[in-house]
Amino acid sequence: MVKARKYVVKNHFQGVPKLSDYEIVEEELPPLKDNEFLVKTEWISVDPYLRAYNSQINAPYDQFSFQIALVQESKNPDYPVGTRVVSHKGWCDYTIINPKLQSDFLDTVYTLPDLKGLSNSLALGAVGMPGATAYFGFLEICKPKPDETVVVTGAAGAVGSIVGQIAKIKGCKVIGFAGSDEKVQWLEKELGFDKAINYKTADVAKALKEAAPNGVDCYFDNVGGELSSVIINQLNVFGRVSVCGSISSYNDDLDKLPKASIVQPALVFRQLKVEGFIVSRWRERWSEAFTEIITWILNGKMKPREHVTEGFDNLFKAFTGMLAGENYGKAIVKV
Amino acid sequence: MVKARKYVVKNHFQGVPKLSDYEIVEEELPPLKDNEFLVKTEWISVDPYLRAYNSQINAPYDQFSFQIALVQESKNPDYPVGTRVVSHKGWCDYTIINPKLQSDFLDTVYTLPDLKGLSNSLALGAVGMPGATAYFGFLEICKPKPDETVVVTGAAGAVGSIVGQIAKIKGCKVIGFAGSDEKVQWLEKELGFDKAINYKTADVAKALKEAAPNGVDCYFDNVGGELSSVIINQLNVFGRVSVCGSISSYNDDLDKLPKASIVQPALVFRQLKVEGFIVSRWRERWSEAFTEIITWILNGKMKPREHVTEGFDNLFKAFTGMLAGENYGKAIVKV
Repeated sequence: MVKARKYVVKNHFQGVPKLSDYEIVEEELPPLKDNEFLVKTEWISVDPYLRAYNSQINAPYDQFSFQIALVQESKNPDYPVGTRVVSHKGWCDYTIINPKLQSDFLDTVYTLPDLKGLSNSLALGAVGMPGATAYFGFLEICKPKPDETVVVTGAAGAVGSIVGQIAKIKGCKVIGFAGSDEKVQWLEKELGFDKAINYKTADVAKALKEAAPNGVDCYFDNVGGELSSVIINQLNVFGRVSVCGSISSYNDDLDKLPKASIVQPALVFRQLKVEGFIVSRWRERWSEAFTEIITWILNGKMKPREHVTEGFDNLFKAFTGMLAGENYGKAIVKV
Repeated sequence: MVKARKYVVKNHFQGVPKLSDYEIVEEELPPLKDNEFLVKTEWISVDPYLRAYNSQINAPYDQFSFQIALVQESKNPDYPVGTRVVSHKGWCDYTIINPKLQSDFLDTVYTLPDLKGLSNSLALGAVGMPGATAYFGFLEICKPKPDETVVVTGAAGAVGSIVGQIAKIKGCKVIGFAGSDEKVQWLEKELGFDKAINYKTADVAKALKEAAPNGVDCYFDNVGGELSSVIINQLNVFGRVSVCGSISSYNDDLDKLPKASIVQPALVFRQLKVEGFIVSRWRERWSEAFTEIITWILNGKMKPREHVTEGFDNLFKAFTGMLAGENYGKAIVKV
C-alpha cells in the first residue's frame, strides 16, 4: 500500500486563488489492476490555464497539470518499472495511471521524450505542452515570414519566451512585452529579442510605434486586455494574431469581463485574422515540435529557462507566484 | 461643354457628418481625350464606409461611392454611347471616366452586368459591391455548413439582409439583430429569418441564448462594439466570425475608440477564428457572386429591398439617414 497526497480544489476561485481554496488530501492507493501502473512524481508544472479552467469546471476536483513521474510498479507492459512518463495527473506525489482510460486530451499520458541529455524537467516546458503551444500556435497560425515584425506579450513566460526565440530563428524582428525591467534585460541581452518593453511603465502605443515603425505583421497574444487592443491597432494589412491566452483577465469572472478598446475597425480596414487555439488540436504532431526544439537547444539557438520551486508543499506558492509574474521562463516544482 | 456638379468633402467629420462638411462644386468638364468617356449619373449609392474612410484620408476630396451612369459621349471603343457603367465616381451628376487610369480598387469601372430584367439599381446593392461583400465575406470566411446557427448584425442593412438570406439558402438557422421592431418584423415575416432581435430594447445576451440554445457557429459582424462582444462570447467551439464593418464606432475618432468587453477568453477556450476583410480581395470573382445572386432573385429565393431617396440634392440626407439606420436594405439615390 502506498500513501499518496494530492491537492484538491474545493472552490471556485474568487479573484486570486487562496491557499484555503485547496485541501491536501491523503489517501491509500489501491492495488494495481491490469493496464495500470504506479508512479512517483518528480516534477510538476504550474501554468496560467490552471487558473482559467477553474471558472469552467465544477469543484471539487483534483488539481490537474502536467507532471513527470517515475514508474515504480506496473501491470502495463508498455510502461515498465523505471520508465518516466509525462501525464496530466497534476499536483500529487504518487498516483495510479491507466493509459487505456484516456477519454480526452487532459488524460494524456506519454513516455518522456528522448531529451538527448537535457534535463528531464524540460518535458514540462520547452519540450512539453508549452513548447508545442509556442511552436504550433505561432508557426501554424501566424505563419511568419522572414523579416516580418512579430510582437509577443507575456514574453518572459513559459510560452512567450519560446515564441520569441522561434521567431528569431525564423528570421523575424521580435518585440516582446514583459512586466519588469529585469525581464526586459533578460529578453534583450540573453534571448536576442530586438526590443523588449516593460508594459507596466512604458507608454505602450508610443513605445511600440518606435520599436516597429513599419507596423506589426504577427502578434502572439498571451495576455489579452487593453495591451492587445493597442497592439492590434498597430497591425499591418493582412496581419495575423494568434491568441494563446488571456492571463490579464483570468482572475475575473467570465460574466464580468473587463472592457478594452474595440479592434473591429482595425480588423476590417487592415483585413486582420485573429485566431484562438488550444494546443490539443495538434496533439498528434507534438513530437515534431519536440524534435526541432531539442535540436535548437543543443545547437545553442534556443535557451530555455526554468523557474524552479522546491517542494511539494510549495506548489500553491509556485502557482500564485507564476500568476503574479514572478517567473522567468517556465515555472515548475521539483517534488 | 457639360456643366457638372459634385459633392466635395471639405473636412474631417466630427461625429455625425454635417451638411456644412460638404460643398457642392460646379465645374465645366473639359473635352474628351482618347480612352475617355462622358457619363450621366442615374443612381448613386450611400454606404457606411463613406463615413469610415473619412478618418483615413485627407480632405478635401470628391465624395466617392459606387454609382451607375449612362455613357453619353465616348472616345473609348469598349464603352460606346448608350453603355451603362458601374464606377466609383461617387456623388456627381456628370463626369469623365478613363478606365485606363485605374490604379486601385477605388477606380473600379465595369459595364453594368446583365440583370435579366431586374432593376439596374440592384447593381449598387445585391448585384453590386454590397452583394459581393455579403456573398464572399460570409461564404469564404464563415464557411457555413447546413444546420449551423448564423448570427448577423446590421441584419436589415444592405449587406446584412443579403447575408441572412444566403444563410437561409445554405440551410442554416439565422438570427438577425436590427434596430427597430419594424425591421424585426420584416426580417422574420418577409425574409424568413428564424429569429430577429431588436438590440435597442432586448436583453441581448438573454435573447440570443433563447434564440440559439445550442450556441452560435458563425457570426457576420457589421457593427462591432459591445453587441459583438456579447455574441462572440456565445460562439461554439471552432466558431467563425467574419468582420465586415464596425458601424457602431464610425462616428468615433480612431484614436479614441470605445471600449467593449474583451473576447480573448472566448477566442482561446472556444478556439474561435475572427477575420476582417475588404471585398476588393475577391474583385476578380465578383461576377460569380452576381450570377448566383441574380438566379436566387429570379427564383424568388432572395428578396433584395431598396430604400430609394429621390434627387441629387438629397444625397446628404440619404447618407446620414442610412448612418442613423433609417434604411431597410440598400440605401440608394435616384438622380
